[in-house]
Formats: sequence, C-alpha cells, structure tokens
Amino acid sequence: MTAHTNPARQSWVEGAAGSGFDADHLPYAVFTRPDEASRVGVRIGDHVLDLGAAEALGIAEPELLSAPTLNPLLGAGRSVWASTRSRLIELLTDPTLRDRVEPHLLALDEAQLRLPFTVGDYVDFYASIDHATNVGRLFRPDSEPLLPNWRHLPVGYHGRGGTVVASGTPIVRPRGQVVSPGSTDDEGRQIPSFAPSARLDIEAELGFVIGAGSQLGHPVSVGDFADHVFGVVGVNDWSARDVQAWEYVPLGPFLGKSFATSIAHWVTPLEALSQAWVDLPGQHPEPLDYLEVEGPAGLDIAVEVDLNGTVVSRPPYASMYWSPAQMLAHLTANGASVRPGDLYASGTISGPEPGQRGSLLELSWGGREPFRLDGEERTFLQDGDTVTLRYSAPSASGGRLQLGEVTGTIAPAIG
Amino acid sequence: MTAHTNPARQSWVEGAAGSGFDADHLPYAVFTRPDEASRVGVRIGDHVLDLGAAEALGIAEPELLSAPTLNPLLGAGRSVWASTRSRLIELLTDPTLRDRVEPHLLALDEAQLRLPFTVGDYVDFYASIDHATNVGRLFRPDSEPLLPNWRHLPVGYHGRGGTVVASGTPIVRPRGQVVSPGSTDDEGRQIPSFAPSARLDIEAELGFVIGAGSQLGHPVSVGDFADHVFGVVGVNDWSARDVQAWEYVPLGPFLGKSFATSIAHWVTPLEALSQAWVDLPGQHPEPLDYLEVEGPAGLDIAVEVDLNGTVVSRPPYASMYWSPAQMLAHLTANGASVRPGDLYASGTISGPEPGQRGSLLELSWGGREPFRLDGEERTFLQDGDTVTLRYSAPSASGGRLQLGEVTGTIAPAIG
Repeated sequence: MTAHTNPARQSWVEGAAGSGFDADHLPYAVFTRPDEASRVGVRIGDHVLDLGAAEALGIAEPELLSAPTLNPLLGAGRSVWASTRSRLIELLTDPTLRDRVEPHLLALDEAQLRLPFTVGDYVDFYASIDHATNVGRLFRPDSEPLLPNWRHLPVGYHGRGGTVVASGTPIVRPRGQVVSPGSTDDEGRQIPSFAPSARLDIEAELGFVIGAGSQLGHPVSVGDFADHVFGVVGVNDWSARDVQAWEYVPLGPFLGKSFATSIAHWVTPLEALSQAWVDLPGQHPEPLDYLEVEGPAGLDIAVEVDLNGTVVSRPPYASMYWSPAQMLAHLTANGASVRPGDLYASGTISGPEPGQRGSLLELSWGGREPFRLDGEERTFLQDGDTVTLRYSAPSASGGRLQLGEVTGTIAPAIG
Repeated sequence: MTAHTNPARQSWVEGAAGSGFDADHLPYAVFTRPDEASRVGVRIGDHVLDLGAAEALGIAEPELLSAPTLNPLLGAGRSVWASTRSRLIELLTDPTLRDRVEPHLLALDEAQLRLPFTVGDYVDFYASIDHATNVGRLFRPDSEPLLPNWRHLPVGYHGRGGTVVASGTPIVRPRGQVVSPGSTDDEGRQIPSFAPSARLDIEAELGFVIGAGSQLGHPVSVGDFADHVFGVVGVNDWSARDVQAWEYVPLGPFLGKSFATSIAHWVTPLEALSQAWVDLPGQHPEPLDYLEVEGPAGLDIAVEVDLNGTVVSRPPYASMYWSPAQMLAHLTANGASVRPGDLYASGTISGPEPGQRGSLLELSWGGREPFRLDGEERTFLQDGDTVTLRYSAPSASGGRLQLGEVTGTIAPAIG
C-alpha cells in the first residue's frame, strides 16, 4: 500500500478546522436544491462546495461534476481523482481564492443529499474473525466456530445493488417466510408462515467504492487496489435474521438482506485516508500468493453504533482479518470484472471485546442475553428505533476525519 | 396469467415463414455495424429490421429504439411494449408497407450483435425439483435430497450482473481456490491451492428480463408478473464446481459462478409466448398465499444442450416446480424493488429423465459416471469445447418459435 502524503492544510472556510471536514478530508456527495438538477458537491466544515460550478472554479473536466451521480468521476480514474482533489484543496485553502469560491458555498442544511452513486454489483464480505467466530458459536455451538475455508479466503457473496439506499431513508420492517419456534407438522417438519421479521438487525460495515473498472478475465492484484478503489463509505447492511435462518441453505442469504442496505451520503476518497493504514492483526496460515500483502494493509477506522442516542458498541475496523485489497483481489481472482459504481463491503465489523460487536445478534448473543438501553431490555430492532453509525479516522493534520454517518429509522411493516 | 392472443401472421419477408422468427415472434436485440452507433433491431427470418429507423417507420417514441441498450424500451412499460409490437407486426405483415420497410432490413450476418441490455441485479433461482434433488443426492447422499425450505419457497441468490456476457463471448476457464482430493495437513485440515478449475460446467437456464421497475417497499404480486417482466432470454450460468464446493459455506456460491454468465442476443417478448403457458406439474404442500397461482403458470419451452455439435440433453422447461411469477413475487416479497434491466434466471432446468439434465454435473453424476461423446468419455468441460443452448416454444401460428441461442467456447485459463 502506498502511503500518500497530503499536507495538513486548513481551510479558510469558517468552522472547517477541527470539524472532521477540513481540507484534509473533502468527501464527495450528490445533492440538489428545490427545482434544481442534482450535481456533485464536496464537503468543507458545515458547508457544501457546489461543483456544478466546477468550470467557474477552474476544475478540469467539469462535466464529470455536474452529473447527477458520482459515476462519471468514479470512472475517470486515479489521475483525475488526484488532480480534482489537488485543485479543491487549493481552492479551499488559498485565501486569495476566497472571493472566487465563496459564491458557490452553501450551508449543509440547504443541500438535499441523494444516493451518491448508482450501485452496480454489491458484494458483502465476512472479513471480521471476531464476527465470524461469534456467529459460528451462535449457530453451530457444537462445532469449530470457523468453517474450514474461512482462514484461506475472504468469504463473500453478492447482495442486491438496486436496494442500496442513502442514509436517512426509512427502513420498512420486511415481511418474509419465518419459522416460529415449535411450528412443525406431525412428522416434525418445520412449517413457515409469512410475517413481519421479528429479528431485525443491523450490520455495521465499511464499504469500498469501485472507481475505475477492470477488464473481464483480468484479475485486479492486491497491489493495484488504489488504481481501482475510489474511496470508502459507511454501510449498514440491515438483516432480518429469522428470514435469513430459514432461507439461507444452500445458496446463502437472499431476502433476509435484500430489502435495504444503507450507505452514507459522503464518499471519503482513499487519498484522505493516507494516515489510517495500519498492519493487519495477523493471518495464519499465510494466505496463497494472490492474497499476499506487504506493509500496512488494514485501516484504523473507529466505528460507533448508536441506538436511539446511546452508543451501544465501538467496533474497531483495525481488528479486521482480511484487508480491503485482499477482498478486491479475491473478488476478481476468477477474472470477474468490476465497473465504476460497484460496491463491496467488509461484512460486520466486530472486535474481540463484547462492547465492540457490530450487530445486535452478537450484542444480545442471539437474543438470549438482552442488553439494557434507557432502562429497557433490548435484543433486536423495534419499530421507531433509529440506528446511526459513525466512523472516524486519523487525518494528515493530526486530528480526526469524521466520515459520513449512516442513519436509518425502522418503520412498521406495510399491510 | 392472462393469455394474450396474437393473430398467427406471416410476414412478407422471404424466408420468415417456418423459420421460428416469423411475425408471431419478433425478438429484440441490440446491434451495430462498422463505425455506426448501436441501436435496437428486431428479428424477422434471417433479417434484422433496423429500429434506428423507427421514426421513418412511424413507430411511436422512436428514441427508445435508437438507444444502445434495450433498457429505455424495458423501462417504458407494458403499454409501450404492446403498441411497439403491434406496429412492428403491421409493418412486417402488410404487403403495402413493404417499400417503406425494406430499405431498413439488413441480413443477419451484417449485424454485429451486442449484449442486449445493461444488467442491473442478477438473481439465480433453483426452481427445478429434479435438479435440486439430483444435486442433493450427489452432495448429501445420506440425507433427504431436498432441504426443508425447498418446497416452501423458490430458493435463490444474487449473482454478478456485471459479468453477464452476450452469446458467443469466449469463456476463459477461471482460476480459483480448489482443494485437490487428499490435500490435507497433519491434522486432517483441507489445504487449498490456486489453480484453473478442473470441474467447469454449464447450467442450462431460462432468464426473465425485468422491464418496468417497482417501488422499494412494495412487493410485485404473482398477478402483476406481466406488468413487470418484458420477456425471456436463454441463459448459460457457467459454473466452476470445484471452486464452488470449497467456497460456498456459509454464504453461498460466489467466484464459482461470477466469472461469466452468457445470455442470448435476442430477447423474446412475453407477448410472443401466449401459446406456451401450461399448468405447473403440481406443488405440495400448497404454497403460502403470496405464492399462490391460478391457471397455467408454467412455460412449455423445449431446451437442447449441444456439446460440440451433439445434443447431449433435452431439458423440458415445463417440468419446473416454481413458476416465473412465483419467483418474482418471492424476490420482492420483502419489499425489494426491481429496476429495468434486472435479470432473474430459473436455475438449471432438469427434467425427471437422465437425458433431460441441464448440467454436466448431473449428466456425469458428479464426474463419477462419464458419458460418451464422439467416442470419448466426457465429464466436465475441456478447453475448446463449445456449448450451445437452444430453446423453442409453441407459437400462435401452430408452428414453433426458435428463441435466441446461447453459445460459448471454452478458452484456456490465462497466465
């Protein structure tokens, strides 16, 4: 992993310093205002710089930024990402450019944020050894918690790209086939019913946004990660555990996951994370050649899981077993291609401590050990619950970047 | 299922009658010619009617047909599909319109056919009871072949939309993690290696192309099938069985499938299949309410699997357990939305007889019972093998429609 050095710059925009959104961050989103077309914006403090004005701001290839999704910018490739970012840093830090830039700044609450990119294929990994171990213990208490393949490859599967929604979108409790305890026929066969999920859960994850595509038949090596991945985004992979438990053999999760996956509005470019790379905790046995990494391949990103205003967990991304570059190398090892706007997520981030678990399944130990929240005993999500995921990372300036948060409130099942 | 009646009309185009591509069929493709933009064409006999000329041909909303993919037409909805088809039938059957139409006909071999639509989400089902039973017997010889959920819901999972390729695209043998027999460490743990797949297989399937999208949170009922599904397309879901066997627990198939899925160039509109609807073979136990169907819900489509010029299997689509409308109702039962260009496939089509199996895994009974082809014993695919899937269905004129074939030749692994 090449460590890019971004000079620790402060913006002339008031309130940017110390906000987590100074000129060392500069995440992108897509926004609109009433009766206006959607276009790209970049965040600085509590403001959005309107990149619909990219031409007036002297940014090269301005048409990439007046688009209603980030996809054109994503597909433009690494040298364009770098030059665009350089110019933005210049615009937002050079006080002599203030008069030129200021007319195109709007307050954050004037911008209506949208889904930042059209999602192509969405892959969800299972890269936390603590999460996989917890789930193994819960579902297969009498066997080895990790299946034989787990330490050899980053286990993953395809989710539904078309139901990835932006942070803030209400999450309607899904209905589905579930088997109530004891619901069996005379011969002991399970009998499902169609009902609202009673075990609705979160999965606190980190997502990686594909920028430049690859060619079918040509794997993306571990070393080419930064040529293809544009940036990261917070992900909540909502899960209906009861639906999933009944449906998932033998072809994996389907409707237990496909009703909604929330992502942050703000995509943090990889270039802003230059100070966040850390060594992986360690891989045993050593991975096969195509998964070998050198140097710091993990990311020191702190995550907070907030349920109705109380932080219930603090999963550390640095504890993840498989690195983002390994996930991409594995995803493409069979020659599968990637497209701008493809998204892959880490899987639930759980650390080794109970207070670091990234799902309610683990926090309530399969629903058997409720936890206390505001004086109540809690297991899975109730209608009206709001979950907010927050992410922060070390920045080049010595402070911390605040990545875009992911929030969602549970609405009752329809019908 | 409403049976639409299409009058059995014959085209004035020479050679159309009896070709399987008369005016009672009219499948759509996307094509180009050297130095020209891609646009939509419709097949009539051995000709393509160039719908880049839609305006000159008096077709409403001609801009839908000058697009480089079918997606705009797909998204336009059922009434546009019907009016476009009516006008095409008129143009191609009314001899007085011949002078107006003929300048826009080109010979099939002048048209370079492309992937017909940009694939959004791709879902693969597992809807054949004979296939699921065979696979169960092969992999779990000591248990019930069907898992407990199988008769209650159409089991399915998400595949990779971005690696769906057009018929004729060479299929590069994928590499992946495989465990050779006997490759274990001192403690009996399996040790994988990274190697070209030695168990490369086909899956003969039928695909359903989503036209009109649906809204997140709102299931598509069984009865609304024809408002959302534009048509059908042949599918070969290439599979690396050795990669799949090692990776698939607990989250399902991933790299064993994602390297390529081939689809036909020609999309047959649902309206052309009005005579193909038949009763399902029977569902026991009765499905839950949201999966209940009335009337003929199955499709009488005959499939041929051709390996290097010899037909090795004839799977009957009419033997499928779950109907296409049930698959869509299930896919959306949790509120998941569909988008124009989403694709879902039936899963391997296998009938009850050995000569009706839609995969080499079944035809060679897990590789243990090779079959003879051109004097050789064969199990899985060899480099240079060509597989062609052909599909036909009863037509309104009493003859048969020939659906677009799906072909692919295996190229050696790269590197």
